[in-house]
Amino acid sequence: MKKGIAASKGYAIGKVVLKLHEEVIIEEKNITNLDEEKARFSKSLELSKEQILKIKEKTEREMGADKAEVFESHMMLLDDPEFVGAIESNIEMNMVNSEKAVSEVSEMYLGIFESMDDEYMRERAADVKDVANRIIANLLGKSTSGAQVFENNTIVVAHDLTPSDTAELDKEKVIAFLTNIGGRTSHSAIMARSLEIPAVVGMGDITSSVKNGDTVIVDGVEGVVIINPDEETIQKYEYKQLQYKKEKEELKKLVSVKTVTKAGKKVEVAGNIGTPEEVHKVLENGGEAVGLFRTEFLYMDREQMPTEEEQFEAYKYAAEKMEGRAVVIRTLDIGGDKKLEYLPMPEEMNPFLGYRAIRLCLDRKDIFKVQLRALLRASAFGNLKIMFPMISSLEEFFAAKEVLKECMDELRAEGKNFNEKLEVGIMVEIPAAAVMADEFAKHVDFFSIGTNDLIQYTLAADRMNEKVSYLYNPMHPAVLRLIKMTIEAAHKEGKWCGMCGEMAGDEAAIETLLEYGLDEFSMSASSILKAKQIIMNS
Amino acid sequence: MKKGIAASKGYAIGKVVLKLHEEVIIEEKNITNLDEEKARFSKSLELSKEQILKIKEKTEREMGADKAEVFESHMMLLDDPEFVGAIESNIEMNMVNSEKAVSEVSEMYLGIFESMDDEYMRERAADVKDVANRIIANLLGKSTSGAQVFENNTIVVAHDLTPSDTAELDKEKVIAFLTNIGGRTSHSAIMARSLEIPAVVGMGDITSSVKNGDTVIVDGVEGVVIINPDEETIQKYEYKQLQYKKEKEELKKLVSVKTVTKAGKKVEVAGNIGTPEEVHKVLENGGEAVGLFRTEFLYMDREQMPTEEEQFEAYKYAAEKMEGRAVVIRTLDIGGDKKLEYLPMPEEMNPFLGYRAIRLCLDRKDIFKVQLRALLRASAFGNLKIMFPMISSLEEFFAAKEVLKECMDELRAEGKNFNEKLEVGIMVEIPAAAVMADEFAKHVDFFSIGTNDLIQYTLAADRMNEKVSYLYNPMHPAVLRLIKMTIEAAHKEGKWCGMCGEMAGDEAAIETLLEYGLDEFSMSASSILKAKQIIMNS
Repeated sequence: MKKGIAASKGYAIGKVVLKLHEEVIIEEKNITNLDEEKARFSKSLELSKEQILKIKEKTEREMGADKAEVFESHMMLLDDPEFVGAIESNIEMNMVNSEKAVSEVSEMYLGIFESMDDEYMRERAADVKDVANRIIANLLGKSTSGAQVFENNTIVVAHDLTPSDTAELDKEKVIAFLTNIGGRTSHSAIMARSLEIPAVVGMGDITSSVKNGDTVIVDGVEGVVIINPDEETIQKYEYKQLQYKKEKEELKKLVSVKTVTKAGKKVEVAGNIGTPEEVHKVLENGGEAVGLFRTEFLYMDREQMPTEEEQFEAYKYAAEKMEGRAVVIRTLDIGGDKKLEYLPMPEEMNPFLGYRAIRLCLDRKDIFKVQLRALLRASAFGNLKIMFPMISSLEEFFAAKEVLKECMDELRAEGKNFNEKLEVGIMVEIPAAAVMADEFAKHVDFFSIGTNDLIQYTLAADRMNEKVSYLYNPMHPAVLRLIKMTIEAAHKEGKWCGMCGEMAGDEAAIETLLEYGLDEFSMSASSILKAKQIIMNS
Repeated sequence: MKKGIAASKGYAIGKVVLKLHEEVIIEEKNITNLDEEKARFSKSLELSKEQILKIKEKTEREMGADKAEVFESHMMLLDDPEFVGAIESNIEMNMVNSEKAVSEVSEMYLGIFESMDDEYMRERAADVKDVANRIIANLLGKSTSGAQVFENNTIVVAHDLTPSDTAELDKEKVIAFLTNIGGRTSHSAIMARSLEIPAVVGMGDITSSVKNGDTVIVDGVEGVVIINPDEETIQKYEYKQLQYKKEKEELKKLVSVKTVTKAGKKVEVAGNIGTPEEVHKVLENGGEAVGLFRTEFLYMDREQMPTEEEQFEAYKYAAEKMEGRAVVIRTLDIGGDKKLEYLPMPEEMNPFLGYRAIRLCLDRKDIFKVQLRALLRASAFGNLKIMFPMISSLEEFFAAKEVLKECMDELRAEGKNFNEKLEVGIMVEIPAAAVMADEFAKHVDFFSIGTNDLIQYTLAADRMNEKVSYLYNPMHPAVLRLIKMTIEAAHKEGKWCGMCGEMAGDEAAIETLLEYGLDEFSMSASSILKAKQIIMNS
């Protein structure tokens, strides 16, 4: 038995396929025809672009736009004049073959990025490596496709799965992943959860502990792997697998049940979504509303700002498909770690404490107004509510409302419909907003507590930083106090209070939150049914 | 009249000396004797090191160790095998002269650093540029010394002043600075304040608006510069200068006066220090205690950890020189943006929310215990108090106290003296600590509110980030509530509460803080007298 990090729940019993990367040896060759060599390099770039574009499209189709973002970075690197230019001058200066030049330049980049020993930089290093390997493989005429033929019930075991690797796996046949490195938030872990197959990561040396064809049990609940188990163990896990399936079916029965506590209080269990199409997943999982619609997807992976019309269509789609159920749409929360190609933003020392969300929108009213007009127009087609992120002072809320009012005046003048009584609320995710909730409650229509950020700021601990993530504790008494204060402040003014951070779907927190009187719990679609069950038993 | 950013207070009337950098043209030459060229390069490195070392020592002497830190980075770059190695292989690979190789390699570094468009990286870029220019100047046999002959009453006007430039100015004769670029926290601004001469920075094009020998008035209070003023204006400013001087003398009278409000409440006005020697500046400026002794200086600019003995001597010095007045020593607050050469730390995406201060100390008890033992031993020689930074939970405080207890037991066993009744408190700088102040107050001996961080976290705004620094507001109602809560919680348990952030010396905040009942105001030595005056008039 070997332990690792439980990255995606569920059980699987299957046969190992080891996915090992072959070592490519690059020979240095002197070239004589520079133009020919440059053309050869250029062709390999084009080929790489085509391949990545295909992988990107496949990933978008199978796993959603956000999972495909990483390939956008790869495409960008292939178009980066600094990177490509450095390779070309290396070919020219040393009169060597392209393979050698790609390898030298990428090593230089890697040397610099890796020596920085910073998570963001290491990710950039991984991108450079993935792309350089692809160019070299294309130069050498090697296959870069990972489309291996898998048997049914395959469990893929790898040192790590690159984005390209994961995108190219056969989803019908692969029933689990195991990797040597990675954590709960690594690329492969996220992919596994989105594919709903179990995965255990950070296992250290699993690649040398198993061989092709070994039978393994993957316990994605406990983060345990059993290699070549005996019959009794297999039976035990088949039983667990069955129970897991049964529990899932039990939950399915709650899909169309209204969520009411034992004491008779009606609570709304809602879903968080990132694209309009995800409303279907929310409804399928029994969501009674959309508590958080992140609108960043509209702005990403493209060359220019989305038009009012495009945005309008997206918001209208969600509003209509939810058939009168609430759809709380958060205005653009870009900046800091989330960047847009066509909107240059400063690199920041502490992006979480930086220029983002409402700060950017109030600074760039031209961008903000396009979104607000689209939101207002879509409000005529369903139960849409607007929510401003990263509000830290009443002044900011008033300023945002003022821009909204301008948009309303314009639309009225243009004779365009919108819901005049549309609710406007704020995310409570900055400590200042929670501390001043009593004042905010007089002016907003609702609160939605964004616990992911609220916890980070309240405890001054970046949860993505593995050295301090132990401090990130939703049940910290200070966090609980701020949440309680916020809910009570809302109720005192007759407003409702929701929560759209991960804590809302956290089984350990739900009872406490119910006790505090939370009105709406919004979470990822896959957590909704379990949350409904807990609330109905409370 | 031209406006800029008031970077250092005071008035000056003098003659312009333009400090313009001469453009160095680097010719590429083919070399034949590689060993000779390498020796030449190596000699220029040695020469550069000697020069930088001298500048560093001069700066330490004249402006203190912290101001000299930047030259430590320059020295490190000259010893960086990656940087030096890249230049050497460039010489060898291309058989070119060292000037060309230094220029190429530094351009490559600059290209990468500057394209990152990140403040930290841009600083690194500035270091690379400063160092590369020095090496090249040495290779070309040019003088790198900025030791120009200045007349009395010189006002230096420059595009920007590099650390080397500032270090080499003649402090006797230069009475003000003006620069095109920079902000209140830029290197030249900090230097001007520490030299107590007026400076206006970020002026845009001051270098092209004045010529050598022009008379200018520098108003460092309003950030205004008047070029070739008429006699009347000169008289007006001579009067202002006089008033400014008089006010300073008025304040000097308060040096040995005890600070008591009109209502008769005794308040302690204390100084923040970074090295033991600064206690003298605190005493000269009428400080009644040291409210914050930052201990990072002991750990910086060196090759290994400071020993217990070294630390003991430093703490003892401060405790003794303060003659029974309180000296509140903060345990090591390193990590994130402040790094040590001999203690490798992860690069972090959000260092302000990362692995630092007490988080690091509890993780590295080996380091922590050396400091605590030194602090305890020094407590036998004065009125020393210990304060833990970045405390976010009671568990952390208890864990830190536990390590302290271990050290006490050890010292007792070794028969070494310390103050058994030594007060132990915490910095309240994370929102969670302020929110839970009532609970903390039961266990700590005192609080010191660290407003710089508390404001940043409460408002989720990095004050060093110019895009959001407008949000950084000490008078934000949420900040004031947290401060009030903290003071009241302390008093309810009979404990005292101080403040050691910049807000404590902020004239606009002092009255409010007095109203809340703050017991101790700790600030930079230069603000103490003014604060005393305000408090005594309140």
